[in-house]
Amino acid sequence: MTSNLSFVLNKPNDVSFEERPVPSLQHPHDVLVAINYTGICGSDVHYWVHGAIGHFVVKDPMVLGHESAGTVVDVGTSVTTLKKGDRVALEPGYPCRRCGPCLSGHYNLCPDMRFAATPPYDGTLTGFWSAPSDFCYKLPDNVSLQEGALIEPLAVAVHIVKQARVQPGQSVVVMGAGPVGLLCAAVARSFGATKVVSVDIVQAKLDFARSYCATHTYASQRVPAEENARRLVAEADLGEGADAVIDASGAEPSIQTSLHVVRMGGTYVQGGMGKADVNFPIMALCLKEVTARGSFRYGSGDYKLAIQLVADGKVDVKALVNGVVPFRDAEEAFKKVKEGQVIKILIAGPNEKVEQSVDTSVDEKKLKAAQTAGSTGCC
Amino acid sequence: MTSNLSFVLNKPNDVSFEERPVPSLQHPHDVLVAINYTGICGSDVHYWVHGAIGHFVVKDPMVLGHESAGTVVDVGTSVTTLKKGDRVALEPGYPCRRCGPCLSGHYNLCPDMRFAATPPYDGTLTGFWSAPSDFCYKLPDNVSLQEGALIEPLAVAVHIVKQARVQPGQSVVVMGAGPVGLLCAAVARSFGATKVVSVDIVQAKLDFARSYCATHTYASQRVPAEENARRLVAEADLGEGADAVIDASGAEPSIQTSLHVVRMGGTYVQGGMGKADVNFPIMALCLKEVTARGSFRYGSGDYKLAIQLVADGKVDVKALVNGVVPFRDAEEAFKKVKEGQVIKILIAGPNEKVEQSVDTSVDEKKLKAAQTAGSTGCC
Amino acid sequence: MTSNLSFVLNKPNDVSFEERPVPSLQHPHDVLVAINYTGICGSDVHYWVHGAIGHFVVKDPMVLGHESAGTVVDVGTSVTTLKKGDRVALEPGYPCRRCGPCLSGHYNLCPDMRFAATPPYDGTLTGFWSAPSDFCYKLPDNVSLQEGALIEPLAVAVHIVKQARVQPGQSVVVMGAGPVGLLCAAVARSFGATKVVSVDIVQAKLDFARSYCATHTYASQRVPAEENARRLVAEADLGEGADAVIDASGAEPSIQTSLHVVRMGGTYVQGGMGKADVNFPIMALCLKEVTARGSFRYGSGDYKLAIQLVADGKVDVKALVNGVVPFRDAEEAFKKVKEGQVIKILIAGPNEKVEQSVDTSVDEKKLKAAQTAGSTGCC
Amino acid sequence: MTSNLSFVLNKPNDVSFEERPVPSLQHPHDVLVAINYTGICGSDVHYWVHGAIGHFVVKDPMVLGHESAGTVVDVGTSVTTLKKGDRVALEPGYPCRRCGPCLSGHYNLCPDMRFAATPPYDGTLTGFWSAPSDFCYKLPDNVSLQEGALIEPLAVAVHIVKQARVQPGQSVVVMGAGPVGLLCAAVARSFGATKVVSVDIVQAKLDFARSYCATHTYASQRVPAEENARRLVAEADLGEGADAVIDASGAEPSIQTSLHVVRMGGTYVQGGMGKADVNFPIMALCLKEVTARGSFRYGSGDYKLAIQLVADGKVDVKALVNGVVPFRDAEEAFKKVKEGQVIKILIAGPNEKVEQSVDTSVDEKKLKAAQTAGSTGCC
Repeated sequence: MTSNLSFVLNKPNDVSFEERPVPSLQHPHDVLVAINYTGICGSDVHYWVHGAIGHFVVKDPMVLGHESAGTVVDVGTSVTTLKKGDRVALEPGYPCRRCGPCLSGHYNLCPDMRFAATPPYDGTLTGFWSAPSDFCYKLPDNVSLQEGALIEPLAVAVHIVKQARVQPGQSVVVMGAGPVGLLCAAVARSFGATKVVSVDIVQAKLDFARSYCATHTYASQRVPAEENARRLVAEADLGEGADAVIDASGAEPSIQTSLHVVRMGGTYVQGGMGKADVNFPIMALCLKEVTARGSFRYGSGDYKLAIQLVADGKVDVKALVNGVVPFRDAEEAFKKVKEGQVIKILIAGPNEKVEQSVDTSVDEKKLKAAQTAGSTGCC
Repeated sequence: MTSNLSFVLNKPNDVSFEERPVPSLQHPHDVLVAINYTGICGSDVHYWVHGAIGHFVVKDPMVLGHESAGTVVDVGTSVTTLKKGDRVALEPGYPCRRCGPCLSGHYNLCPDMRFAATPPYDGTLTGFWSAPSDFCYKLPDNVSLQEGALIEPLAVAVHIVKQARVQPGQSVVVMGAGPVGLLCAAVARSFGATKVVSVDIVQAKLDFARSYCATHTYASQRVPAEENARRLVAEADLGEGADAVIDASGAEPSIQTSLHVVRMGGTYVQGGMGKADVNFPIMALCLKEVTARGSFRYGSGDYKLAIQLVADGKVDVKALVNGVVPFRDAEEAFKKVKEGQVIKILIAGPNEKVEQSVDTSVDEKKLKAAQTAGSTGCC
Repeated sequence: MTSNLSFVLNKPNDVSFEERPVPSLQHPHDVLVAINYTGICGSDVHYWVHGAIGHFVVKDPMVLGHESAGTVVDVGTSVTTLKKGDRVALEPGYPCRRCGPCLSGHYNLCPDMRFAATPPYDGTLTGFWSAPSDFCYKLPDNVSLQEGALIEPLAVAVHIVKQARVQPGQSVVVMGAGPVGLLCAAVARSFGATKVVSVDIVQAKLDFARSYCATHTYASQRVPAEENARRLVAEADLGEGADAVIDASGAEPSIQTSLHVVRMGGTYVQGGMGKADVNFPIMALCLKEVTARGSFRYGSGDYKLAIQLVADGKVDVKALVNGVVPFRDAEEAFKKVKEGQVIKILIAGPNEKVEQSVDTSVDEKKLKAAQTAGSTGCC
Repeated sequence: MTSNLSFVLNKPNDVSFEERPVPSLQHPHDVLVAINYTGICGSDVHYWVHGAIGHFVVKDPMVLGHESAGTVVDVGTSVTTLKKGDRVALEPGYPCRRCGPCLSGHYNLCPDMRFAATPPYDGTLTGFWSAPSDFCYKLPDNVSLQEGALIEPLAVAVHIVKQARVQPGQSVVVMGAGPVGLLCAAVARSFGATKVVSVDIVQAKLDFARSYCATHTYASQRVPAEENARRLVAEADLGEGADAVIDASGAEPSIQTSLHVVRMGGTYVQGGMGKADVNFPIMALCLKEVTARGSFRYGSGDYKLAIQLVADGKVDVKALVNGVVPFRDAEEAFKKVKEGQVIKILIAGPNEKVEQSVDTSVDEKKLKAAQTAGSTGCC
């Protein structure tokens, strides 16, 4: 083993590279993984800039990053499902396995969750990572390690679409065409939705969404939410309204519009993070008997399905990647995400050789979408 | 047949008694019912005072009332389940039976619903009522006609509690201790909820709720919703939060508190009507993966279950009645409801002899609760 | 309007052509449809040969056929969704709309169902057909009338797959590769199943299934069910067993094998008809907590989804058709189905010109599968 | 600590008392519990008599017993929810917490379950027992340790009734009036079932069921299952059939009758163990779209609810107990169960003083029921 260089947030806007001790296997079911690639999430950037998200405050220096894939380099004595050399996607949150939510199959709601790069727990922008073997998912041969680093945001989208109970033949509206919104749209298609409408305020992002997976797009307008909804329903020919609406933006006008777009008896899922409180059309929910659900991270089966969707060619995660940078350029990569210059950028692990730092295959639409990606509050 | 005197709303605050033609049987599956008793709903009072609820505007004179029980006096040629003399509770809304919601078992969401005392359809404060036989429910021998008139609000509560998916052993918080809130609490108990907390801002109503069905009560406080929720959870010993929270008040602070009281993965149902839009803790819904549902009127099986609950002695609807008045005193009864002098008052049909107009069995707690019942926006 | 020639079953193996009166519109919501094409179902053949299915006995002459598409030629005064000239798929069973099952969204379980070609009700092998407009589904421009006649068996498959609650990423085993089994496999794929295993005892049918939609096939073997299941699981690499197993054969060994193939907590659906009672591995159901469901015809939303799947190119129903014959050759067509010479054959309506009576595009695999289709009890 | 005397099955019909080492706390989350009372399950008796159940074969000497309550005598360093002196009901099966079923909330289906008194794992008829703290449930003050020993069979019944999705107002038929059947009937009542029909072939057991919890009883008759079902439906006035049918007998005629008693769209749950394969009315399941589910042991939330039902006085488990015997009389107690002389008998722990070995409060009905309890294959 070589470097365990780690990318550490000391305080807002103050990061550094530190050589940390390589973790040891703490438990016979753990495996040790060399990190190959890590994506950057909006929450990473938020911690970097603000040092906190809601009640979670970075008090001590914390390694950033939680969207990673790596290669198994050591396995505990009880591990039977993985061996050295296996390429894995890392699920970065580890629940207690003993509380009510854990025992009832909702471990994402575990109050004692240890989640990477959520204070006080270190993240995965490091050389080596130790994790329980059942939270490391072997990648099939036809799924690359770079794709593996995108399984995390895809699992977020899978969980959201499951919360929306999307059924074959349904119409689904997705508010927000950032990475998670785009992935929700793609997952909804793979669940058999016939009509998937991507909504954003930036035309370039809609153009990309249309070329990526959406059957329809709608440029959200600065009109009252009910009127915005009426126009959306008319443009996308949604009849009595959408079967399911997913908010992947966290933006107040999007949330309001969502409730007016969903049909009688339909479903609305809040997937994007934003203001704690918003002005909300509660009577629309009441009178239409809408089912609203929150979606938080991912749970049982979500990583497995995310990998399957990539392996089966049903969701193309590579199309979202603008580039791969070496570990030493991590801060630069964070800046690009913050400034909206990329849809998704990957940081190579500290022991990973990167031949190129720019994705030369990036097409014009993706580039344009990237250049505007920071302009809304998409997750 | 004798009088078909009807209680008609001409315009806001302008009512009159009119002799209307007795309806004929329009369809071989219809039955004709002589109305015995009718309760007054908050929506009746709202039309009387404001002439409209949301998009529903009273343009032409409209008979009021929709909480009725009566006696079958004639049956269509295809009716096999009812006969003359049968005492029935009347479900007052008639769906088209042909649209998507109807065919999929959600007839309460039928866009072509003809609902009594919702413009432009006349209501049941009249002598005779014609209805499809499958929307007239025979009362068992041990359920009185006066109880039969309370099946409608009980069905509202049944539907709300079903939407909350209340399971045996759960904890349920009900915001609002008006008639529907009280009935929701009682129904939640009958569904096996172990802990049922009634919440209101009026102590007399809480005292009645405690004596009626609640295992706990909480006097809602004028503090921020999160703090209000913390106190409620502590006082009622709800641990990680309530399994289900029902808002039967429509009041903005109650709705906000609801989202902070519900546990991770719990359920919140909006049953009470109020402002179209409220400030809403959307991130609490998102991060706790709360399931929120609206509840609108009642649907398949709700009337049947409501009658069963009364017949089995599981819900005591009589306890909510402060008095019965003759038909000619209908306007006076509306005034009493508006002024909060009663929890529930019944109006006898125009052909019904009423021996007493005051419930002499009314106890002090019910009286006190009644005298404050108008002070909040409970439904 | 011209001929209303009808194909009538008088008694077992005794059919005739009769000119029947053109039906009139009985109800303002009815439409009159000229029949263009009708497929033949196993149940039609069963009535033809045996004169009865279970408790349903043909006592009086009965028109056969219930898998039809046609063209609207007249509409009732209340019809708003269809007009003359619209091409429609006909849902052939009409529920009472008033019973418990109907009002709760399960009209396929209506005890008063009037179902075409189920005694005593006439079927659709006739010139003109009158039906409620909400049971006539307009075909999109890119769905032909011949495809429209196959919506009925596809809706059967849609209902079965819905009963199996097939989710994206799952593995599904379908016992039987007759028309319904093939369609179940195709629908399961469209629902996102990753692995779909077709099982039959005839290799030619498996070859067709593989080319049509199955990802794997298994030639069922004459060994004890547990051993058969073990081999199936091993060959198809199903790990701990299949997430869902659908029996579309009705054959006792298939049913037994199903229960041994399904994983712990998985789902098994009985879609095929066969013996009333079979030797059944009840302890496998108990100890693995299997959910077993029956599937009977189709219900709310099934026709709509079936049409959508064809319109979206997700299920290719044309591939199952071996040929189209003129109305006068109806009995000949029945013989071909009985003898297993076809997978699916269509009979043109009596007023329909048919240019060809043989599908010249039939490929060798389909032909082979057809020639063996009668050899098992598939539905 | 004193004796850790254990009741060991050496081989069929060969038991002995052995002093075993007191277990140590293996894991920081474990607690050590002194056993106070243990009930005898049919499976204990089956191992005693036959040395095996299905694939589970007793090869090495095994301590019997798994229905126990005890008192905490030591706690691991990570335990926060229990302390010395706490009285607890013991859930006797410990899942791996890492497999698919465990992570998705179905730990009862864990393939690596270590279950007490299921070979090769020792049971709880011993002095001290070590277990994970989250599988030891603190008893409320108003629940005795003797009642605590009955939480296990009650949890079995809770799980069965949950699998049946029993809803308020429904009708439930329970086949078999042995301990589990009786508890299923009682739990169904507590879930709000209006009508609960106990079915058995022994009149004394029906008499006890009627006095215990059933609203109706039916003496199963030696006639064909369809006829038996017809009589049952008529006698219990079940109309179109029962909403849910639970088989707690494992007897082939009961299973057959169940499928004919359940209504269209109803639910049947197999809770009792019996022959691996039975003659089964599969077409009744298919044509009525019955949902059938197996029920195996208990899972998330079941113990908690079982304790709650006892604490709330909704299920009276004491009424099933015929007596308590000292540890040294364990074999004698097994004989009584085998011979059907008791409904339920408790064995005191080896360190527990028992003042009486006979329940003097046993009423005549319970006694009669007990004397016949061995006559059917109830679980």
